[in-house]
Amino acid sequence: MIRDRVLALLRQVADGHLDINAALDRLARDPIESLPFATIDHHRAIRQGYPEVILGQGKTTEQIIAIAQRIAARGEGLLVTRADSEARRALAAEFPAAEINALGRCVHLAPAEPAPFGKGTILIVTAGTSDLPVAEEAAVTAGALGNSVERLTDVGVAGIHRVLAGADALTRAAVIIVVAGMDGALPSVVGGLVSTPVIAVPTSVGYGASFGGVAALLAALNSCASGVTVVNIDNGFGAAVAASRINHASIS
Amino acid sequence: MIRDRVLALLRQVADGHLDINAALDRLARDPIESLPFATIDHHRAIRQGYPEVILGQGKTTEQIIAIAQRIAARGEGLLVTRADSEARRALAAEFPAAEINALGRCVHLAPAEPAPFGKGTILIVTAGTSDLPVAEEAAVTAGALGNSVERLTDVGVAGIHRVLAGADALTRAAVIIVVAGMDGALPSVVGGLVSTPVIAVPTSVGYGASFGGVAALLAALNSCASGVTVVNIDNGFGAAVAASRINHASIS
Amino acid sequence: MIRDRVLALLRQVADGHLDINAALDRLARDPIESLPFATIDHHRAIRQGYPEVILGQGKTTEQIIAIAQRIAARGEGLLVTRADSEARRALAAEFPAAEINALGRCVHLAPAEPAPFGKGTILIVTAGTSDLPVAEEAAVTAGALGNSVERLTDVGVAGIHRVLAGADALTRAAVIIVVAGMDGALPSVVGGLVSTPVIAVPTSVGYGASFGGVAALLAALNSCASGVTVVNIDNGFGAAVAASRINHASIS
Amino acid sequence: MIRDRVLALLRQVADGHLDINAALDRLARDPIESLPFATIDHHRAIRQGYPEVILGQGKTTEQIIAIAQRIAARGEGLLVTRADSEARRALAAEFPAAEINALGRCVHLAPAEPAPFGKGTILIVTAGTSDLPVAEEAAVTAGALGNSVERLTDVGVAGIHRVLAGADALTRAAVIIVVAGMDGALPSVVGGLVSTPVIAVPTSVGYGASFGGVAALLAALNSCASGVTVVNIDNGFGAAVAASRINHASIS
Amino acid sequence: MIRDRVLALLRQVADGHLDINAALDRLARDPIESLPFATIDHHRAIRQGYPEVILGQGKTTEQIIAIAQRIAARGEGLLVTRADSEARRALAAEFPAAEINALGRCVHLAPAEPAPFGKGTILIVTAGTSDLPVAEEAAVTAGALGNSVERLTDVGVAGIHRVLAGADALTRAAVIIVVAGMDGALPSVVGGLVSTPVIAVPTSVGYGASFGGVAALLAALNSCASGVTVVNIDNGFGAAVAASRINHASIS
Amino acid sequence: MIRDRVLALLRQVADGHLDINAALDRLARDPIESLPFATIDHHRAIRQGYPEVILGQGKTTEQIIAIAQRIAARGEGLLVTRADSEARRALAAEFPAAEINALGRCVHLAPAEPAPFGKGTILIVTAGTSDLPVAEEAAVTAGALGNSVERLTDVGVAGIHRVLAGADALTRAAVIIVVAGMDGALPSVVGGLVSTPVIAVPTSVGYGASFGGVAALLAALNSCASGVTVVNIDNGFGAAVAASRINHASIS
Amino acid sequence: MIRDRVLALLRQVADGHLDINAALDRLARDPIESLPFATIDHHRAIRQGYPEVILGQGKTTEQIIAIAQRIAARGEGLLVTRADSEARRALAAEFPAAEINALGRCVHLAPAEPAPFGKGTILIVTAGTSDLPVAEEAAVTAGALGNSVERLTDVGVAGIHRVLAGADALTRAAVIIVVAGMDGALPSVVGGLVSTPVIAVPTSVGYGASFGGVAALLAALNSCASGVTVVNIDNGFGAAVAASRINHASIS
Amino acid sequence: MIRDRVLALLRQVADGHLDINAALDRLARDPIESLPFATIDHHRAIRQGYPEVILGQGKTTEQIIAIAQRIAARGEGLLVTRADSEARRALAAEFPAAEINALGRCVHLAPAEPAPFGKGTILIVTAGTSDLPVAEEAAVTAGALGNSVERLTDVGVAGIHRVLAGADALTRAAVIIVVAGMDGALPSVVGGLVSTPVIAVPTSVGYGASFGGVAALLAALNSCASGVTVVNIDNGFGAAVAASRINHASIS
Repeated sequence: MIRDRVLALLRQVADGHLDINAALDRLARDPIESLPFATIDHHRAIRQGYPEVILGQGKTTEQIIAIAQRIAARGEGLLVTRADSEARRALAAEFPAAEINALGRCVHLAPAEPAPFGKGTILIVTAGTSDLPVAEEAAVTAGALGNSVERLTDVGVAGIHRVLAGADALTRAAVIIVVAGMDGALPSVVGGLVSTPVIAVPTSVGYGASFGGVAALLAALNSCASGVTVVNIDNGFGAAVAASRINHASIS
Repeated sequence: MIRDRVLALLRQVADGHLDINAALDRLARDPIESLPFATIDHHRAIRQGYPEVILGQGKTTEQIIAIAQRIAARGEGLLVTRADSEARRALAAEFPAAEINALGRCVHLAPAEPAPFGKGTILIVTAGTSDLPVAEEAAVTAGALGNSVERLTDVGVAGIHRVLAGADALTRAAVIIVVAGMDGALPSVVGGLVSTPVIAVPTSVGYGASFGGVAALLAALNSCASGVTVVNIDNGFGAAVAASRINHASIS
Repeated sequence: MIRDRVLALLRQVADGHLDINAALDRLARDPIESLPFATIDHHRAIRQGYPEVILGQGKTTEQIIAIAQRIAARGEGLLVTRADSEARRALAAEFPAAEINALGRCVHLAPAEPAPFGKGTILIVTAGTSDLPVAEEAAVTAGALGNSVERLTDVGVAGIHRVLAGADALTRAAVIIVVAGMDGALPSVVGGLVSTPVIAVPTSVGYGASFGGVAALLAALNSCASGVTVVNIDNGFGAAVAASRINHASIS
Repeated sequence: MIRDRVLALLRQVADGHLDINAALDRLARDPIESLPFATIDHHRAIRQGYPEVILGQGKTTEQIIAIAQRIAARGEGLLVTRADSEARRALAAEFPAAEINALGRCVHLAPAEPAPFGKGTILIVTAGTSDLPVAEEAAVTAGALGNSVERLTDVGVAGIHRVLAGADALTRAAVIIVVAGMDGALPSVVGGLVSTPVIAVPTSVGYGASFGGVAALLAALNSCASGVTVVNIDNGFGAAVAASRINHASIS
Repeated sequence: MIRDRVLALLRQVADGHLDINAALDRLARDPIESLPFATIDHHRAIRQGYPEVILGQGKTTEQIIAIAQRIAARGEGLLVTRADSEARRALAAEFPAAEINALGRCVHLAPAEPAPFGKGTILIVTAGTSDLPVAEEAAVTAGALGNSVERLTDVGVAGIHRVLAGADALTRAAVIIVVAGMDGALPSVVGGLVSTPVIAVPTSVGYGASFGGVAALLAALNSCASGVTVVNIDNGFGAAVAASRINHASIS
Repeated sequence: MIRDRVLALLRQVADGHLDINAALDRLARDPIESLPFATIDHHRAIRQGYPEVILGQGKTTEQIIAIAQRIAARGEGLLVTRADSEARRALAAEFPAAEINALGRCVHLAPAEPAPFGKGTILIVTAGTSDLPVAEEAAVTAGALGNSVERLTDVGVAGIHRVLAGADALTRAAVIIVVAGMDGALPSVVGGLVSTPVIAVPTSVGYGASFGGVAALLAALNSCASGVTVVNIDNGFGAAVAASRINHASIS
Repeated sequence: MIRDRVLALLRQVADGHLDINAALDRLARDPIESLPFATIDHHRAIRQGYPEVILGQGKTTEQIIAIAQRIAARGEGLLVTRADSEARRALAAEFPAAEINALGRCVHLAPAEPAPFGKGTILIVTAGTSDLPVAEEAAVTAGALGNSVERLTDVGVAGIHRVLAGADALTRAAVIIVVAGMDGALPSVVGGLVSTPVIAVPTSVGYGASFGGVAALLAALNSCASGVTVVNIDNGFGAAVAASRINHASIS
Repeated sequence: MIRDRVLALLRQVADGHLDINAALDRLARDPIESLPFATIDHHRAIRQGYPEVILGQGKTTEQIIAIAQRIAARGEGLLVTRADSEARRALAAEFPAAEINALGRCVHLAPAEPAPFGKGTILIVTAGTSDLPVAEEAAVTAGALGNSVERLTDVGVAGIHRVLAGADALTRAAVIIVVAGMDGALPSVVGGLVSTPVIAVPTSVGYGASFGGVAALLAALNSCASGVTVVNIDNGFGAAVAASRINHASIS
């Protein structure tokens, strides 16, 4: 399609409808778009496919609101992650239609035109109740990116029967996100139970020699269940984007 | 279907065709199979879906050959990873039909009945020539699990035009595995160019403060391109299993 | 009893049967034994309770043989751990009655008078076949210290049904040693299944970001099953001594 | 006993007193309990053996109270660890009969029917006064789980005579918990003095290159006294559960 | 020239114009200056070349003001880095002519006589908006040391077209400072695009396994673009001094 | 100039001298070169500016020779770093005109047409004799890239007079590379003595808690002399490329 | 002397002046003191040699005051380290004669009878002004332990002439404590200039990859000046005790 | 005395006995020596005080012999540390009078004129037999530097009575070097028993999470016995130099 656009531009030049210098300017001004790379178009497609995401962490409430206004003005929806209570209040006031997820520290404003939905369901599994904030961040993000989301909570391996009891949900899912801190053992157990893609999110839940989630991260990276992939500690957002990449890939 | 089996067992008890104690014993003796969990069946399906994989590392050639003979006898094919030159020679002698990949240190014997193929192509991208052994391990594994494999090699970010020139291959792929050591910058660039699933394999290529691949691992975990997932350092095998999980998930 | 010995000594002084200076010398010469501390006696009891253990690692075969001869001469038996093949051959030649465990790299010569046996059974559970050397070190040590030993092997959590199938053995044991590398998830699963003491031995099995067993060590320390204790990486010997302390404590 | 329950169910089916589908439903609905695994029963036994424990850390006072009310309603007692002063005040108001341990940050409400007592005494040894909060957490937990508790405080190795002076207490104990930060040298000294089980709890006491207790953790893991086991940094709760596992194991 | 000064002194002694003891005293009192080392003079030249810099971090506002007054009194200008809002307010009140950079947390008072300017331009490139404070610290410092400064912001590699679009600025610069957190991939991309000196400033931007900038630091140290040098995490000041060393070196 | 090329192409289209599809193909076929980015051209300039460099480490002698033949055939010279003795012998045999530096493990074949020389001198300072291999790698590389090289060896700070005695050399240099292991203190001392650019190369020289050069790396990153930049441990090559970037930048 | 005391006791028994059981009791009751170990006596001597030291960190003001009152009551003086401003105020109110050192966060009350003085002077050298709090802790401690203290401040190696200018003080000292953060280079320079004992105190001064003083600690441990010893990060107290051990050892 | 020398030179100039240019040359040629710094002279004194020490590690036998010949020719004696068996054999052949210490990997040739002796005795205490090589390196070095050396071996804290039994030796010593690996607990115990200077040498003895001696290093740095100083892992040489600095300081 970009190829089509460049073709059209060249045709305009050939037809004399576009001045050489004007054509050059358009190629120069917007060099990226005029590149015959589907990836660039893809990049743009990504942007259009889901609302610009604002990482609230490290930004003032004023900055968040200012950026959010610009994004929301485009009607493509809005997703703010890592928004503290003050930012959530301000966003709720500014965007009354927005959905506020306090546990997941997210604010989501649905786009005017809903995002195309992925075919399957993304299941978000948590080891303990302390892992819920990260799981909710993943759930809100996955929903915002156009995915059905299911949850299976508090099924840590110290009571192995709990995860076994969730076998139905596990087998129904198209993609599974496993959120686990402490010993990070759950991704291995889940990865061994299913053949669908499993994404581990280590969390910073724990104390002592958990080193802010490094113990769980290392466990996930060394999972004895092969084919488990990992995202950064507490990165529920990233896991949801990865799951959505998979879930939407499975459409086409 | 397991539910059916338990149902049948109960029917036999009801019909008096099965003694109560015998029924109890069968439930006790084979507890796993009698659990109404599709996941267990799935696990079995995984095993049937691809040949048992032998991790050659840390095993003697004799051990590898002995295990390989048992597996190959089932006719489901055979995959040996991390096989050193001595093991590869011995396996080549034992299984003349096996494909030997010296660079990837793998030996693969195709199953009598080929594995069902994933719909898309798995693209394996490498940053430098030193990353090739890990990439080849991924390529052989992905092929053995029933996937089309394409390669894009030596496109490290220090010459950014090289990866841009590969845009066609990147956009064609269903899943992309990015193999990169040193600064581990390539997954971020690739992840930003496409919307398909991207799996990063940090490699132990590098010296000094690369810490055996930790530098590349951390870079991949902190990728500024959201939705990139990561496997362990040098784990080409794991990346291929993950990619195959995705690629086969996209069939159904 | 030490109190008795000092009492006797003082009596001899009071009776004039022991010269003051001789009494002083005896208190001075053997100060430890003359302390009214049962712990010191206990320490000696420990030494008598099990044969002196030689850590073969970092010693030459000549040194090992020399020390072994002195220990064996006391008839209290002999245990050598971390003995390489050369040392094992030399010890086998020197002590034909010794039991050689090549996998566990141990050599054990039973004492003339067998050690008192602990009441229960020590169960040694392994996650994978690569964990066996450490498990065997634990098994030989536990046996040498006077304990019944049972084994449950290759029950890693990626196939969770395998450990569930071992439930009988798990519940029979007085103490359980869980030997696991890679993600170190097995101790948590086992710790959640039983209420008996569970000792985790992380192993250096793994590669990439396993850091020689640190990943498994951290997982064990952060076990979500409470009450799991941990010994050093690959320390099968230490786990067995700890299990034996428990198993013998349960006698009295 | 679970075996009995399944036997009973099967009998009902054989007798025609229970419909096949109803029997199947009961097995399916409560699959874990109907498994013939003593471990599962054990798990339940654990739950019954001691009150559900609430880790106060990371929970709001409201959440703690809400969970505590549900647990206390069962009459099995209540244990809250890592409760800050606000939570302790609220719990004291809610449960006037509860024992508040400010130093150990614990709240304990004894069950209506006291837990069965372990046979021996758990001795909790501390190196310095700063280790006391962790020691108290262990003491309260051990008491709540049904164990006699003794304390030996401030016997750090810099004044070695202090620990030697405690030899009587050391030899009397069935299990010893050694709580020590800084150089973590005390577990080795104690482990060398006794033959009973010794559990080391490294604490985060110290500064500079103590790294929040890592120095003490490493010292404990590398103890030159063999058979010392270790729990996570500051994990007095875990040490007490482990000690209780041992102390109760020694009954049967 | 120092050689000349010592020569002169010796001549005075030879001529009898300078007493031996006085000569000895002068050599002793000012030993540094009387050393025939241009480097010492150079050191002094450095001091004169740019205003004394006050690192505000870890100092009270009172201390900062007191030191600033002494420095400003010399008329050589004043630079305060890492000044918090309170310190910035106080400095603005004390030195009305000073330029306040809130984002970069710097305060700069131009010297009476402007510093000699470096010949080229220092370009400061940032990966994301969160890297701006460090970039501004670098920009203010570079300006204070007498350099033209240009900025290229928010050109992270996840949208590789952004940095490519900045090619003009990149090629114009004499020295490039690349400020990047998270995966630290940008220095490699920039280093591959230009042949001018490139200095990477890893930032502490990120979370999870970014370890306060260590991930970005390691990426920069392992850059696959050769010849990229690195300064400490968040050290915008140091990068600017290094760039200024280069830019002024290029004058002579 | 690229702008000119695109302008020309557009003109050809406007003039009807170039078919629209042909124009599109040329833009598509050679996307990198047809981009209006001087940086791409710059990249090419870099390649021409100095011979392709072969990192011998991790390559077989056969691979090195094969690559070297292709590079040498272009007449642009040849530089092989990290070449072991076998590789050096083979290269010496293949390229009799090549200069062999055994200490620096480098082989250099001068190009037919010498590289343009940088204006100043690169001084390579070493703390101890064990740092010499890294220093020689830097020296050979700097020479190959067209720079005058001077050396100041064995001037570690434990004998501070040694570095002070080298003040003349320090002040003469345009760029200084400081190669130091162990405590890495030398870069700070040198950085404080001069105002010219200083690049620190930490080396893996040392034992115990030097951690393969990490101690020296951290010291260099935390240098109290501002404006010192750092390259990876033992990366003499990288330091020389960086110094050469500076030294050639100072020409124009 | 202890030998004498036991001799006397035995004599009393022999003479019938002391009952056997009474003698036994005295040996048992006070086992430590009755041990023929001068070290135990030495330990007591240490206690008498300097006032009991209270580490204020981690204690409430009430706790500090309570302990301080008990210690001060003995008239042996009082030293409190790491006392925050609240604690210092309370101590000043309680002990009007106490000397308050705000910078060093210490409070010292001289004993009624001054401690015996060490023969030489302890020189405390600091690299930068931020190292002063640690230096002052060392200074106050050294003084309290009975040592003359001299200071040499702000002589960091980035201006090497500053430390050279302090040569007189360096050579006068009996023991030198070098307090340095950041790159920790100063101990190496000082250690190379003198032959007297040098104790390095790394400080947590710095940012970025200084890791709370680890960079300086590693530099000190890897000092290229042999015979430099090290204490923990920021441990001015420990350095002073070590220096005092040396300085008092040099008396006898 | 250097002051005297410069005074003399200046007098010669004043008297006309020395030409100005000659005087300048002498000051310039030998700038360090002509500096009025006692430290420089001290440095020289250090060199004369003990033979130049060759660190054999990382040097070829040829290099060691060549350097040794030059040093020995000065008649000041010779000390080679970390000499492997080949180097020791070659040195024994070259210097028949040299003392070879195989365990400590040292070779020592006494100077023609013996070094002045320190007043007291340096006691070298080891925790286990594996620590002996490091202890012997310390012993040979201390002897070569002119100190009486005593040894107390195998007194690890797991058998605390062993170190208590060595109390006489501990109290006799002027300086104590404690060599200990694994948990590094011995320095704390010794430091608490004596008031003399104690230097800890952590060793790399251990496995698993001992990290090549880091566990012992951290324990020593965090010693609960105040005033213990530390040298690098396995650095017996450095500990001996430090002890000798103390022991010789106590002479004057």
